[in-house]
Amino acid sequence: MSSGHSRDLSPIFEPKSIAVIGASNNPTKWGWIIPSNILSNGYVGKIYPVNPKGEEILGLKSYPSLLNVPEDVDLAIIVRPAPSVPQHLEECVEKGVKAAIVISGGFRETGEEGERLEREAVRIARRGGVLLVGPNTMGVWSSTVSLSALMPPVIPRSGAVALISQSGNIGTNALAFGSERGIGFSKFVSSGNEADIATEEYLDYFARDPQTRVILAYIEGLRDGRRFIEVAKRVTKKKPIIIYKAGRTSEGAKAARSHSGALSGSNRIYDAAFKQCGVLKASTVNELLDLAAAFLLLPLPRGKRVGILTWGGGYGVVATDACVEVGLEVPTLPVETIRELDEYLPPYWSRGNPVDLVGTFDRSIQPKCLEALVRAENIDSVIASGLIVGRESFGAALTNSQRSDKLGERVADDWLLTADRKNMDTMAELIERYGKPIVAVTLTTRAQLTREAFERKVAAYSSLEGAANVLVKMLEYANFLRCRGAET
Amino acid sequence: MSSGHSRDLSPIFEPKSIAVIGASNNPTKWGWIIPSNILSNGYVGKIYPVNPKGEEILGLKSYPSLLNVPEDVDLAIIVRPAPSVPQHLEECVEKGVKAAIVISGGFRETGEEGERLEREAVRIARRGGVLLVGPNTMGVWSSTVSLSALMPPVIPRSGAVALISQSGNIGTNALAFGSERGIGFSKFVSSGNEADIATEEYLDYFARDPQTRVILAYIEGLRDGRRFIEVAKRVTKKKPIIIYKAGRTSEGAKAARSHSGALSGSNRIYDAAFKQCGVLKASTVNELLDLAAAFLLLPLPRGKRVGILTWGGGYGVVATDACVEVGLEVPTLPVETIRELDEYLPPYWSRGNPVDLVGTFDRSIQPKCLEALVRAENIDSVIASGLIVGRESFGAALTNSQRSDKLGERVADDWLLTADRKNMDTMAELIERYGKPIVAVTLTTRAQLTREAFERKVAAYSSLEGAANVLVKMLEYANFLRCRGAET
Repeated sequence: MSSGHSRDLSPIFEPKSIAVIGASNNPTKWGWIIPSNILSNGYVGKIYPVNPKGEEILGLKSYPSLLNVPEDVDLAIIVRPAPSVPQHLEECVEKGVKAAIVISGGFRETGEEGERLEREAVRIARRGGVLLVGPNTMGVWSSTVSLSALMPPVIPRSGAVALISQSGNIGTNALAFGSERGIGFSKFVSSGNEADIATEEYLDYFARDPQTRVILAYIEGLRDGRRFIEVAKRVTKKKPIIIYKAGRTSEGAKAARSHSGALSGSNRIYDAAFKQCGVLKASTVNELLDLAAAFLLLPLPRGKRVGILTWGGGYGVVATDACVEVGLEVPTLPVETIRELDEYLPPYWSRGNPVDLVGTFDRSIQPKCLEALVRAENIDSVIASGLIVGRESFGAALTNSQRSDKLGERVADDWLLTADRKNMDTMAELIERYGKPIVAVTLTTRAQLTREAFERKVAAYSSLEGAANVLVKMLEYANFLRCRGAET
Repeated sequence: MSSGHSRDLSPIFEPKSIAVIGASNNPTKWGWIIPSNILSNGYVGKIYPVNPKGEEILGLKSYPSLLNVPEDVDLAIIVRPAPSVPQHLEECVEKGVKAAIVISGGFRETGEEGERLEREAVRIARRGGVLLVGPNTMGVWSSTVSLSALMPPVIPRSGAVALISQSGNIGTNALAFGSERGIGFSKFVSSGNEADIATEEYLDYFARDPQTRVILAYIEGLRDGRRFIEVAKRVTKKKPIIIYKAGRTSEGAKAARSHSGALSGSNRIYDAAFKQCGVLKASTVNELLDLAAAFLLLPLPRGKRVGILTWGGGYGVVATDACVEVGLEVPTLPVETIRELDEYLPPYWSRGNPVDLVGTFDRSIQPKCLEALVRAENIDSVIASGLIVGRESFGAALTNSQRSDKLGERVADDWLLTADRKNMDTMAELIERYGKPIVAVTLTTRAQLTREAFERKVAAYSSLEGAANVLVKMLEYANFLRCRGAET
């Protein structure tokens, strides 16, 4: 599509009825797996399997052709081999279907004949006014109508993050990992070859989607750079956009061409465009999710000065390095903050920033120290490490130990679980009260702990480096908004 | 100690008997927790609690003073407040104790009075021939005698990795995380303030320890750089040393001074020294563990040419970027390799490197494609992603789905679990047969999967970037050994 032309993509993400063309009774075929995923996720609309044999599929009446379906169809999902796709799209046009997801591969990514087929598919779809997702896509997901039209059996959490991915595997994995961490999604599209609808157009749609507050994308290349910049500039004023751009090296770009057919273009051009638009860059799927959690839960920092609270001095050193290396500052604390911390900490504490809880066993001082630090006038944001440790961390060892008096279990519950929750709730409260971001570091990769924290409105990370990165990227966005505000 | 003087540290790591000075019946005191950890881990020697009240502690007869213990004591663990430590060390000397671990803090890290106490402690210990660990340490662990003289109730796996940490928290967390991933440890020391024994001397001891094959360290600074270089140069010829150096920034170095009292020195000096000695640098605890797993399980790569096999084209792009960005190469494949892969893959596969399994559902082709790639004459090492996916990845969704015929569970078991194990065993076999490293990428952070892989002799990583990093660091070590060999 040319720049500026925006279509309504709601038939893709909010269809009232779906036909699956190529539905099957063979559970190893996508024609069975995809409708099965749609059923499992509890899709609210109607499903019409289409199969020449016309047999019952997954308990649903099926139809020998799309044209035999007795009612209106908003969305067709096509899982038939590439050469038959143009014909099925002709049927979609005839039936008045509004959108088609072409799951099948075998198009532009495979060479000349595939490219010809792809051009034909687009021609038919555009002429007939059918929105075309893919081809070579893993499908879409939408919280609005509980639609999981995906190849892998992923059932994501519902929430406020929209995700566009030019890789189906990376996208659906991001859905699964994000959901494990507690992050909920509004919409997802595996954009595939982007023969008709490209990243730029999905971006535009998600910008206007009221369920979406944060937009993530994995891209290998963009078709229409001018339009991307126009859309992104407009969107970032309201919603953060975070993009993981792969194909950074020339070898990676070559691999991208044979994967999604994307022309990656120069890395420097992308960096400049992102910067100009206030788009944040991520370098891994985890970083995409780290930033999504932060933008969902935290206020933007007002400056670069970080207060660091750790349980264990080594972590203070590591956190300080991590902050300074990304350009944040770790200032000395005001006298009144030190005086307050003196009340809670043993006399030999360092009186510096980072604040080390110096092996203090009494976890009731943790929320107090945290508040003293958050309140400090020269602190813009706080990294708190060791305040959420997880019942499992020591719990397993404690409960497995030879203690006869069940002390292990009591310690695990009271000293670990209860104190962790108290700290989570304190963090959420302090974030609200002081309007400063607090990021928690759990030092574990246990998704369960991160999820519990997220549910209690705490953004928790497995590493100090990850926490520092989140703060500096949020600051980058805050500074962008400030300059934008001054401009307009 | 002066350069070159090496003491026998076995009384610390292989004591026949231990006295705990400051043992307690109060389960919130270290005097209870530490002997309790020693008991839980099944220490093979004798334990003598020392407590003025002389009551029974943890079912063990206790003694009012160390001097009342009727038999020889190899190792004393002191948990009494700093000011009384010199007196307890005097008793150690009198009793003929060979080594003392001073858990207590309140020494050099807290100021002048602490520094005086620390100097006094060292003077007494050295004059009396008592090896002194710490002070301000979280203790030691040793597989040889099943000794867990640690503050946190961590029970690590036994294995071949020695770990020295100037941060007790970081060290004991590394033990816990490593064990979760399947990595076993030979010995661990939280070296604390290193008043007597410093990192260099532990390094020297672990170099000679027959149980140890890989040495890891977290350091904030080194006391005796000359000795470190002398020892490290000697050790790296036989065993890889991987060091995570914190206090890289001047702010981080300042935090290090108030933590362990370490003088961090210039970053550039450390980098140069490490390079000269063939010591590998890590930047996080996870990277330390990533490299430990690789060196335990894999042969060294002979060159920089990587073959990439992924299930999903996006991962191929990401893996290629990751390799090229760290300096590895992703060469095109020989004609005969492509011809062989043609037999297993659909006609539209890219015929390039990375090799994408292009959504093929038939997992029995995975080991075949892997072997074709490993065997290729211009490939030195292989990154294989998506060959170990985990029963949990889709399993949870599958088994939760509404399918009535238990198909979900069958798929999870046959298609996921059995195929994963077959792939793991194939990898281990191919590594052996072709003498080339294969690193597996699981794309999850589930430690259970990584552990199962490790137990089947496969080094598995959660990210493609992590896998590329492991290969380039192994190559760095291989090149170092080659140059060394040429030199001597």
